[in-house]
Amino acid sequence: MSQLLFAAFSNRSDAVQLAREAGRQLEADGITSSLHLLDVDATPVVDASTIVVSLGGDGTFLKSARLAHALGARVLAVNLGRLGFLLNVPSNAVVADAKSALSGDDIVERLALLISVSGTRIKEFALNEVVVERAHAGHMVRVKTYVDEDEYLTYSADGVMVATPTGSTGYNFSAGGPVVEATLPVMILTPVAPHFTIDRSIVVADDKVIRLVAEDKPAIIVADGRDIGSLQAGQYVEVRKSPSPVRVVATRSFDLASRLHEGLREGHA
Amino acid sequence: MSQLLFAAFSNRSDAVQLAREAGRQLEADGITSSLHLLDVDATPVVDASTIVVSLGGDGTFLKSARLAHALGARVLAVNLGRLGFLLNVPSNAVVADAKSALSGDDIVERLALLISVSGTRIKEFALNEVVVERAHAGHMVRVKTYVDEDEYLTYSADGVMVATPTGSTGYNFSAGGPVVEATLPVMILTPVAPHFTIDRSIVVADDKVIRLVAEDKPAIIVADGRDIGSLQAGQYVEVRKSPSPVRVVATRSFDLASRLHEGLREGHA
Amino acid sequence: MSQLLFAAFSNRSDAVQLAREAGRQLEADGITSSLHLLDVDATPVVDASTIVVSLGGDGTFLKSARLAHALGARVLAVNLGRLGFLLNVPSNAVVADAKSALSGDDIVERLALLISVSGTRIKEFALNEVVVERAHAGHMVRVKTYVDEDEYLTYSADGVMVATPTGSTGYNFSAGGPVVEATLPVMILTPVAPHFTIDRSIVVADDKVIRLVAEDKPAIIVADGRDIGSLQAGQYVEVRKSPSPVRVVATRSFDLASRLHEGLREGHA
Amino acid sequence: MSQLLFAAFSNRSDAVQLAREAGRQLEADGITSSLHLLDVDATPVVDASTIVVSLGGDGTFLKSARLAHALGARVLAVNLGRLGFLLNVPSNAVVADAKSALSGDDIVERLALLISVSGTRIKEFALNEVVVERAHAGHMVRVKTYVDEDEYLTYSADGVMVATPTGSTGYNFSAGGPVVEATLPVMILTPVAPHFTIDRSIVVADDKVIRLVAEDKPAIIVADGRDIGSLQAGQYVEVRKSPSPVRVVATRSFDLASRLHEGLREGHA
Repeated sequence: MSQLLFAAFSNRSDAVQLAREAGRQLEADGITSSLHLLDVDATPVVDASTIVVSLGGDGTFLKSARLAHALGARVLAVNLGRLGFLLNVPSNAVVADAKSALSGDDIVERLALLISVSGTRIKEFALNEVVVERAHAGHMVRVKTYVDEDEYLTYSADGVMVATPTGSTGYNFSAGGPVVEATLPVMILTPVAPHFTIDRSIVVADDKVIRLVAEDKPAIIVADGRDIGSLQAGQYVEVRKSPSPVRVVATRSFDLASRLHEGLREGHA
Repeated sequence: MSQLLFAAFSNRSDAVQLAREAGRQLEADGITSSLHLLDVDATPVVDASTIVVSLGGDGTFLKSARLAHALGARVLAVNLGRLGFLLNVPSNAVVADAKSALSGDDIVERLALLISVSGTRIKEFALNEVVVERAHAGHMVRVKTYVDEDEYLTYSADGVMVATPTGSTGYNFSAGGPVVEATLPVMILTPVAPHFTIDRSIVVADDKVIRLVAEDKPAIIVADGRDIGSLQAGQYVEVRKSPSPVRVVATRSFDLASRLHEGLREGHA
Repeated sequence: MSQLLFAAFSNRSDAVQLAREAGRQLEADGITSSLHLLDVDATPVVDASTIVVSLGGDGTFLKSARLAHALGARVLAVNLGRLGFLLNVPSNAVVADAKSALSGDDIVERLALLISVSGTRIKEFALNEVVVERAHAGHMVRVKTYVDEDEYLTYSADGVMVATPTGSTGYNFSAGGPVVEATLPVMILTPVAPHFTIDRSIVVADDKVIRLVAEDKPAIIVADGRDIGSLQAGQYVEVRKSPSPVRVVATRSFDLASRLHEGLREGHA
Repeated sequence: MSQLLFAAFSNRSDAVQLAREAGRQLEADGITSSLHLLDVDATPVVDASTIVVSLGGDGTFLKSARLAHALGARVLAVNLGRLGFLLNVPSNAVVADAKSALSGDDIVERLALLISVSGTRIKEFALNEVVVERAHAGHMVRVKTYVDEDEYLTYSADGVMVATPTGSTGYNFSAGGPVVEATLPVMILTPVAPHFTIDRSIVVADDKVIRLVAEDKPAIIVADGRDIGSLQAGQYVEVRKSPSPVRVVATRSFDLASRLHEGLREGHA
């Protein structure tokens, strides 16, 4: 079993190449590593001491983090993309940071969502957000929202999401939601293109349970960009804090301010 | 060939019932009418002198208006729904207004969009809006926009739409766009949940041509809520004013202000 | 020294009347009380055991809370207005809740802001928000923002505010900011009408220090609706968590959900 | 009487210098010009044949345009600022464009607003926008709006504005309003930071009259950034199209698209 598991998509030849080179350098120092192709390989055999090293952009990281979370492992976020809202290690620091990750214990715990669906056995995990959204283009869903037992607003909208602080700069941001510091213990409820109602986000403590009820039409459930199921009218999604967080190796600080600056530059490129 | 064509969806028994009763009353006055089930019947034989009488909500009206437009006929908008942003005739006035429509010539012309797709023969029509949107849940499309030859903004978003004034209180409104008086000669360009860029709408004269180019991923094209085709990367949708407007019978005024009040009440019901 | 201090504005005769009646009833039970007119009377002699009973709307409560905070006392929020985002005691429960407040210890601590201004001795307190805003109608201010040592965005805007969770349903909401549960340990940075930049709020932990720097023009500083000073170009406001929170008596729960529903109804009345 | 009137603020030495140099060159071609300091000089003697040449940024142009409008003259917009949303002539083209302006007749007419105030003789003009706004920091105004005789929404807000297409990229944009092509015959009604109601703009034909009524508190009236009066509760501002537009010399086209690109770059600089 390797100490490091490099995770990449098979079509990212730069990532595959980087994994090979880094692997050779680390081997010289007596550190074992292997390469896991996220879209090809079966679930690898690792344990909680392994560090999953994500090589790619935000999408690669989300998938790597899900893998690490499922295995009880830590994840190190190496940025091979243009702009990574979730990534804090530059690609030329991968060897140094991987080593320091193995010796150190600088872990940042990031809130993950545990998602269940009424009347089903679905138990899913999301690091960014879960969305209940329209099943068909050109329609709206009607979603009633609850926080614990309190009924909040009902939205006719493209969708309604619950985002984590980590996900606040993603789809939540596009939908008008606030940017939230990554370590805050909160969940963010944000509607997407709601019709004739207030579009403000609602920020609640992460010990609450948020329920999203499909009122009158089927809806689909999307977690971190993956379609994980559907809702019939009357069914609901329950979202709460996952008992185990995502454990991200913090070999260097994550600078939200400069990500915002970069994001704005990219957004208008 | 009937003078009036009642148009309704087959599952709206109240509309079917109303069409029958109104038909009997009108027959007594020597006025011929027939019932067209929008989701069942083949395209009816009518001509430009016919009046299509939409019986239902905004969705019924959009479909009836498309039928009337295709046939060169006028359309009368009867409201059988709770809130109709496009509808100005209450259901108890259907006989009186249908008669007055036949004798009078109070027509309001509403801008319709002509939609074509590069590299295809698609020619479609929209009264509310056309949207270029993501083909898959959980993804964004990247859309570059042009007004005539000028390149405007490029959006990474759920979608980008061109709306008419008629459609300004519909999906355009949900996406943050302005309410525009129904008779103004303008088109409204509005992004839906754009990432890290300005979300303001852009209002241009209706003699302009707007082009929406799919940058790097497939997208789908949705006109008035109907999926009308898809775009491959590099393909574009061209949107311009339809040479023939939708001709709506204006037996009574359309009161935008009270629709807004109602809309807000409904939105928070 | 009274056990209860009823606080009201002198022009609210209903509040003054209620204070007198409640005072008589409480006296019969051996509880001492007095009436403090917020806009007339000098700072009263009370101590930390006193409960300030705010009788009025949100404005009265803000002023009463400031008084209670200065005196180390608790505050009970009685609602005599139409809609109180900060108020949880109906006016007919004032006697019962005042008694139960004296015997019980159900206190909710609410984050207050401590505001200081570079180059001055200004030390102010805010329960809702502090805003750095344009000194003159028709102009913008340019404000650079920092969270601890990190430079965040620079806004040309009507103003830039830091709001508490308590204030999230106030001016922050109008400016597009999120609704935040009252007990969360966060501050909300929200621009007001920023020009050509992102208008999203940024939510940070309440152990951070936020700095708002006036870039090139004088600005004024407004805390909970009161003008507390001005900023010359280059000067800054520092905002941090007040070491002592506002202690609100929680004789009954505060139902954010139904406040939102009411607020929306009022907003469109 | 000069053929050209260079208009500039006295503290812009670059503008004053440019006026002098351009004046010398034009004199050699037999064209007379003079310099008008907008903040110093009395109203100059010119007639409708004169061209006012604005030398500065958007603020200079607004003041120059007001002067030209009052005198029945045309205005040429030279950009000496960083970013000019209203300006289309680069500073190095001032001589060439001034000449071509005298010989040609490429005029673009821009909608101007005529503003009157109930119970007063105030008659003011605005090229960008008129705002009814709170008289005091930290308060809101409550403004009821009418379009002709129809009552529209009532806002509790920092202010409510009516903007022209020319002004759509100014304060209207900051407040969330749409960008509107400069030549469209419309007015835009946009609230600034409205509390608990819909913040969408409403776009109406420029032959309508918009009324803004101060409901319960004094408000101030700001036109193109200048305080032009105040409103007592019950008084209203009436806004309509000015019978005479602002006549802008169009020696070169105005490229809205590239202004948007520049604006976004500046906004995030």
